[in-house]
Amino acid sequence: MPTRMATATWDGTFKDGKGTFNGEGGTIAGTFTAGSRFTDDEKGTNPEELLAAAHASCFSMALAAQLGKAGYEPELINTNATCKVEKVGEGFSITTMQLTSRARVPGITDSDFQEIAAGAVKGCPVSRALAGLEIKLDITLE
Amino acid sequence: MPTRMATATWDGTFKDGKGTFNGEGGTIAGTFTAGSRFTDDEKGTNPEELLAAAHASCFSMALAAQLGKAGYEPELINTNATCKVEKVGEGFSITTMQLTSRARVPGITDSDFQEIAAGAVKGCPVSRALAGLEIKLDITLE
Repeated sequence: MPTRMATATWDGTFKDGKGTFNGEGGTIAGTFTAGSRFTDDEKGTNPEELLAAAHASCFSMALAAQLGKAGYEPELINTNATCKVEKVGEGFSITTMQLTSRARVPGITDSDFQEIAAGAVKGCPVSRALAGLEIKLDITLE
Repeated sequence: MPTRMATATWDGTFKDGKGTFNGEGGTIAGTFTAGSRFTDDEKGTNPEELLAAAHASCFSMALAAQLGKAGYEPELINTNATCKVEKVGEGFSITTMQLTSRARVPGITDSDFQEIAAGAVKGCPVSRALAGLEIKLDITLE
C-alpha cells in the first residue's frame, strides 16, 4: 500500500496569514485563510471542505466495492458530504458529517441496497479514520 | 459557523469506474480511480491525500493560532502530512498520520515552542476528528 502525502504552508500570523497546500500527486492544490475557513466572505478552501471531499469520495467508492462483492454492478453513485463545525468552549470542533447519497444500481431491492449501504458507511476507511465525528447517512436508490 | 460541503460521483463499478469530486467553494476538484488510490501508476488524487491535505492545513493554522495566543508572531509554518494505509483483514485501514513540520518563530525558546506545538496537534479540529488514527508529530524550530 502506498503512503499518501500532502504539504501545507501557513505564512504569517493566524489572523492575517494565508495558507497554501498541495498534494504529492500534483492534481490537488489550494489556498486558505481564516476568512475562507470561518466565514463565507473569502474565496478559497479550508480543512473541513477537504475532509468532506475525502469522505464523499471514499464512501462512494466503498459503496461501489460492496455492491460489487454482493454481485451488483452500480452505474452511478453520487454523494454529498456536509461537515458541521460548532463552537465548543473556547475553540471549535467538527462534530458531524452528513452523507447524502443517491445511487443507480440495476436489479437490487431497496432493502438489500440499504443494508449494503449501511455496511459501506461503517467500513469505509475514511469513516473509520473520522472516529471523532458523528456520521449520518441518508441514501436513496434511484 | 458555516457548514462545509463537497460532492463526489463514482461512475461505474469499483474496479473499472472513476470518481470525481468538487468542493462547494469552487476552488478544489479532482479525479480518482482504484488505480490512483491503490497504486502509484495512475494520475489523480485519492481520499487519503485529501485527508493529508486537510490535516497539514489544519495543524499549520492551529499552530499559528496557539503561538499567537502565547504572544508570538510566527513567520512561516510548513507541514508535511503522510497518511499510512495498511491492509487489515480483508479490507484496508488508514492507520497513521505523520506530521513533519518546521516553523520560523522569532524570539521563542525551543522548549516553549515544543510545548505549544504539542498542544496544537492535540487541539487542532482535524486531529480530533481523525480520532481513529495514530497521529505523530515531528516538529523543528528553524
